Amino acid sequence: MKIYGDIQSGNCYKVKLLTSLLDIEHEWIEVDILANETQTESFLKMNPNGKIPLLELDDGMYISESNAILNYLASESTLVGTCRFSTAKILQWQFFEQYSHEPFIAVARFISKYLGLPEDRKSEYHDKQVGGHKALKVMEEQLQLTPYLVGSEITIADISLYGYTHVAHEGGFDLSEYPSILKWIERIQSHPKYIGME
Amino acid sequence: MKIYGDIQSGNCYKVKLLTSLLDIEHEWIEVDILANETQTESFLKMNPNGKIPLLELDDGMYISESNAILNYLASESTLVGTCRFSTAKILQWQFFEQYSHEPFIAVARFISKYLGLPEDRKSEYHDKQVGGHKALKVMEEQLQLTPYLVGSEITIADISLYGYTHVAHEGGFDLSEYPSILKWIERIQSHPKYIGME
Repeated sequence: MKIYGDIQSGNCYKVKLLTSLLDIEHEWIEVDILANETQTESFLKMNPNGKIPLLELDDGMYISESNAILNYLASESTLVGTCRFSTAKILQWQFFEQYSHEPFIAVARFISKYLGLPEDRKSEYHDKQVGGHKALKVMEEQLQLTPYLVGSEITIADISLYGYTHVAHEGGFDLSEYPSILKWIERIQSHPKYIGME
Repeated sequence: MKIYGDIQSGNCYKVKLLTSLLDIEHEWIEVDILANETQTESFLKMNPNGKIPLLELDDGMYISESNAILNYLASESTLVGTCRFSTAKILQWQFFEQYSHEPFIAVARFISKYLGLPEDRKSEYHDKQVGGHKALKVMEEQLQLTPYLVGSEITIADISLYGYTHVAHEGGFDLSEYPSILKWIERIQSHPKYIGME
């Protein structure tokens, strides 16, 4: 299978990290978002929504959306949960990530790290801090109760949230306010098959 | 089980529609977002993210995020797909809905229908039109190929996208530009167990 992605994107890195944890063989095809490579005619044929990551299966079929890809690739492992309830809680965290976390933390990081915090985006950047801290508080509250987001074992919920949380400082978020998140980050990084974002 | 929701919210209506299609008995507890009933201390104990819909199971456990609730409630039906690939495609559309569709179409509708399009939100409202039409184009392209978003049968992907698409005109979106979406809306509304939003 092929994975189209940009390793500096948390959404793409999530998928890369999962392939390492589960030893999934694949070809990684680097795509440059800033050079608009996701908006070319040939890319839009593969994903009409013009986004990465994108998974191409051996039969030529495609799956987009990072969290859908994680669910597909992990579907035969315990990383998708071990009962109907835990599977639903994992999805809950993944939808939380896309709606209440990524649009704040990833976008603040993008404005700061990739655009260099230009004057005309400063107000948006500051607005993003509010929503980002709200999301981090929700995570912190859960991680005070359980070592991982859904219980005592790592799941794809953790991989989804880890993607942008562990680089949240690049978006201006000081994680020292969130001791349980910091311990959770260490826990994930100590996984024997962990790979970093580089 | 109990479902906390506001029937005028597309995210909540999705869940209500599924309970009708699958004959799921439940108690519906109406929650008023505009009166901040999702931000009370007692509500935040049930869902620290302060959002509806929220599912309370008979054992007192909670699941939030509309699409996670749909997956949970439909998990033993064919509405969640019939193979690993179709299940992943359904999730792909649901994550698309939360990231690329709802933040534009639902928010434009909220600004227009509930806030009365106030002067200080007009610029945001107009910005939302661009992203909303982009999402509708992606849906239209798929629905030119297949009667439902993932093949020839209705799935929870359709329920997720139907929630705000069928009231997109309330956010200023003219659906007559999207003939395949209009036919898909009719197809869903002709389901024998269909119920409307109110």
